[in-house]
Amino acid sequence: MEGMLKENSLKGKTIIVTGGGTGLGRSMGKYFLELGANLVISSRKMDVLEKAAKELEQETGGKVLPVACDIRKYEEIEQVIRKTEERFGQIHGVLNNAAGNFISPTERLSHRAFDIVVDIVLRGTYNFTLAMGKNWINNKQGGTFLNIVTTYAWTGSGYVVPSACAKAGVLAMTRSLASEWAKYGIRSNAIAPGPFPTEGAWKRLFPGEVAEKIDPLKRIPLGRFGEHQELANLAAYLMSDYSAYVNGEVVTIDGGEWIKGGGEFNSLDEVPQEIWDQLEKMRNR
Amino acid sequence: MEGMLKENSLKGKTIIVTGGGTGLGRSMGKYFLELGANLVISSRKMDVLEKAAKELEQETGGKVLPVACDIRKYEEIEQVIRKTEERFGQIHGVLNNAAGNFISPTERLSHRAFDIVVDIVLRGTYNFTLAMGKNWINNKQGGTFLNIVTTYAWTGSGYVVPSACAKAGVLAMTRSLASEWAKYGIRSNAIAPGPFPTEGAWKRLFPGEVAEKIDPLKRIPLGRFGEHQELANLAAYLMSDYSAYVNGEVVTIDGGEWIKGGGEFNSLDEVPQEIWDQLEKMRNR
Amino acid sequence: MEGMLKENSLKGKTIIVTGGGTGLGRSMGKYFLELGANLVISSRKMDVLEKAAKELEQETGGKVLPVACDIRKYEEIEQVIRKTEERFGQIHGVLNNAAGNFISPTERLSHRAFDIVVDIVLRGTYNFTLAMGKNWINNKQGGTFLNIVTTYAWTGSGYVVPSACAKAGVLAMTRSLASEWAKYGIRSNAIAPGPFPTEGAWKRLFPGEVAEKIDPLKRIPLGRFGEHQELANLAAYLMSDYSAYVNGEVVTIDGGEWIKGGGEFNSLDEVPQEIWDQLEKMRNR
Amino acid sequence: MEGMLKENSLKGKTIIVTGGGTGLGRSMGKYFLELGANLVISSRKMDVLEKAAKELEQETGGKVLPVACDIRKYEEIEQVIRKTEERFGQIHGVLNNAAGNFISPTERLSHRAFDIVVDIVLRGTYNFTLAMGKNWINNKQGGTFLNIVTTYAWTGSGYVVPSACAKAGVLAMTRSLASEWAKYGIRSNAIAPGPFPTEGAWKRLFPGEVAEKIDPLKRIPLGRFGEHQELANLAAYLMSDYSAYVNGEVVTIDGGEWIKGGGEFNSLDEVPQEIWDQLEKMRNR
Repeated sequence: MEGMLKENSLKGKTIIVTGGGTGLGRSMGKYFLELGANLVISSRKMDVLEKAAKELEQETGGKVLPVACDIRKYEEIEQVIRKTEERFGQIHGVLNNAAGNFISPTERLSHRAFDIVVDIVLRGTYNFTLAMGKNWINNKQGGTFLNIVTTYAWTGSGYVVPSACAKAGVLAMTRSLASEWAKYGIRSNAIAPGPFPTEGAWKRLFPGEVAEKIDPLKRIPLGRFGEHQELANLAAYLMSDYSAYVNGEVVTIDGGEWIKGGGEFNSLDEVPQEIWDQLEKMRNR
Repeated sequence: MEGMLKENSLKGKTIIVTGGGTGLGRSMGKYFLELGANLVISSRKMDVLEKAAKELEQETGGKVLPVACDIRKYEEIEQVIRKTEERFGQIHGVLNNAAGNFISPTERLSHRAFDIVVDIVLRGTYNFTLAMGKNWINNKQGGTFLNIVTTYAWTGSGYVVPSACAKAGVLAMTRSLASEWAKYGIRSNAIAPGPFPTEGAWKRLFPGEVAEKIDPLKRIPLGRFGEHQELANLAAYLMSDYSAYVNGEVVTIDGGEWIKGGGEFNSLDEVPQEIWDQLEKMRNR
Repeated sequence: MEGMLKENSLKGKTIIVTGGGTGLGRSMGKYFLELGANLVISSRKMDVLEKAAKELEQETGGKVLPVACDIRKYEEIEQVIRKTEERFGQIHGVLNNAAGNFISPTERLSHRAFDIVVDIVLRGTYNFTLAMGKNWINNKQGGTFLNIVTTYAWTGSGYVVPSACAKAGVLAMTRSLASEWAKYGIRSNAIAPGPFPTEGAWKRLFPGEVAEKIDPLKRIPLGRFGEHQELANLAAYLMSDYSAYVNGEVVTIDGGEWIKGGGEFNSLDEVPQEIWDQLEKMRNR
Repeated sequence: MEGMLKENSLKGKTIIVTGGGTGLGRSMGKYFLELGANLVISSRKMDVLEKAAKELEQETGGKVLPVACDIRKYEEIEQVIRKTEERFGQIHGVLNNAAGNFISPTERLSHRAFDIVVDIVLRGTYNFTLAMGKNWINNKQGGTFLNIVTTYAWTGSGYVVPSACAKAGVLAMTRSLASEWAKYGIRSNAIAPGPFPTEGAWKRLFPGEVAEKIDPLKRIPLGRFGEHQELANLAAYLMSDYSAYVNGEVVTIDGGEWIKGGGEFNSLDEVPQEIWDQLEKMRNR
């Protein structure tokens, strides 16, 4: 998969990506750079950020500003914004991508574990959104928010309940501000990525037969995980002016995973063709 | 499970149940009778209706009018309404319950098979709703619609695609008229029942190991099918004046089935406790 | 509107209502008492709780235990549970009803205002749910959670954004645990009430013509606010065993408000009949 | 707004657009041509199609095949497929865009009016989808379906109820086949466009003060209608391989319209800043 947008589609834009030093955040940031944007990446680990910034600049020829920030602390976010403005001037977009999660039966979690996830995912996101939004409104500038959520933001899911609570909150904020702040020229959208996991993460976590039973590939109609560039293409579209009329929307990119799980009779995929043949004959007799 | 509403909760109401001679429609109709309603049951098979009517009257002491009707034919519905008014006077509620379905890979269906299901489920329902609504509006009476849909009305589902199309249409009509016809005192709601199947239907249809793999009980958090009275309780509530402020709503009663299927990590139910123990130890090291 | 369930429908059940000393929480609690339940009400204000407890006991002849509790503090919730068990033995249900809200343009809120609402609504609810759930699982008892959310938990809404975030989180938790904890006999459901406001609250808040423009009655197809007993009937159903097969569901009771607002052409209600007459004539020419 | 995808993004693809001779269908088709696709446009009116085909070829330098087809007739669709294969070989995508609608109070519609809309929109779409899907499966080719729906496919809406029923059905089919036919390499997605109307259509239809009251611009947070190219960009993305991991999704492009209508407190947009100032002062006293 390659990049889809025309060259320079984000030329002259400055975009902040929280959690942008690693993983999917980094992949999306890299594509923003390739499209001509200035990139700011933030997370708590300055060494990771600096290494990523250097590599990204080399790979793309773009400009990357790493800024350490604990998004649970409002003042640190205000710092990120100030430093960004000092370096690049006006800010055009924020990709709220930073997250945390515990995969565990809920009854094995402490309330503190809930707090940790909700503080990073929900509090961190509304902190950044509030600080950036106030800045844009005060400066009479518009801007674009893009928030990474999950499909279980609306279905809920066991075993990741703190994350489900927090991501649902982020989704509600996305839709709320899409209405309320549109009058200031601020758009808000979200992406719900399905499984884009590191190869074999599941297998390392769980022993053979368990990994087999819960194999996420079985849940996905398309039968494969997503590629980072596929997510990056969607993110760049939603961050760019090309999507200027998309507002308050969450776009799912999961190969059909949640819709397959939710549909009552989709498990009939397990019925072999011979049996359908037989049933058809019986019906036609 | 027993009936939940106070005695006479539907006293003096006249309610029409399409597809009311058998199955869930009959169970709901029976409970309406027990609560004091007059019942009209309609379907294409007059002999089935007459037998059911007689039995229902004996079981409940209520009054049942069977009227043959092909709901695909608007004129026959007008007949049902006229005969009901002749017998019982004003009509208070319609339970749109009649349905048809083919369980099959979609590519094995002809377009005529699609037509058959859509004609019964969607066309039949809007025909009945339109005829009854016009009657209520002309007579300056209010009334209550209750429509039986499915959870795959919003998730979609393979192997029942004509039914998914049609039930989704019924749900959209429910919500549309909840807005538009409320000014005439007409409420519209729906129920999405999960699996309330006949014992062993699946096993008769599919041979052993296939039935095992697609066992619907595995999909249901509560681990059991629903009881007819559970559905009847919900239907009676939504048909009664007790739910007078519920409008445009679809209530799901499926033991949590669709929500479990949709949630990305719910399959971790398959991970045994020992493995969670191990993972916890590793995390705490 | 009167109570709908048969006498003693909640006989012998012990139910905790957070925020149960006033408003809708009190109304629901009162009806639980009338149906035979023991009631525990909690909030931060012991004087309000004690007064409410005394009045509720007098009005219903039931037993009410008031327990002061700040649901943001996990240990205080554990206290509520212990005191309830000492007084009434096994606990059967929790109604997570406590809430807080600021009605304000979002850019006028500080991040601390967000924290306050999210801490009460989301943190408070998961704290209570976690403490109660662990207790039930340890004691090998089942139980029922019923959570009060809002329709903007899924649509989002401007001017109440912290509440939208938090209520969306509560809804996701409801659906998540409906899947995960069903195996322990624990059900989870929610209600999304529309406008059940105090008469004239809006008018006191906003001056004449503004109150007129934003009149919430205009948004409601049924043209009226809900009555407390209507909500209490629904809550008692979902708390009782009569709804034993409803799990992971949110039932909206809003007179059709959100569905009317969402539907693209519902504002055509403003077109007078004469114009429809004209358009019809033109079409038929 | 200009086209967003890289040159030749649809090079060598053959795409059929139903209802492709006029309006939004034509605009999307034109952009497919610009991206290198071969285009087939179908509708009932061959003269309109031929004129459009000639113009589109001149404007883009691409190849356009017009084929007359009443999509309510399965055999005519099979003809479209055959003629397309004769001219262009393998077919890669179908944009189900043809539609019909009546804007009217529902009680003023006959059941025949319902039939007309449902036959074109739902029956026509499943006919085309079934014929194309069987063809792809028989030929062991994959392909992409993209279906145009509406936001009232899930919210419902008064005054367009037949269309709401039919579009909801199309959405359910989209999601159903996204699961079921993914194994054959067939993806299914949908777009829900908000208002992209002809300038002044509303004003021509309704006299001054009514048009003012129902002004759709008031419903849209972004305060403007969409541009055809904005829809075309989204459609081209979903039709191209760049969206290969998006499956079973409906993407809304409506400026935030439905989300604003649905959110309970969004009408507080009408409260002027002075009053918020006053309220803030009162709160802080």
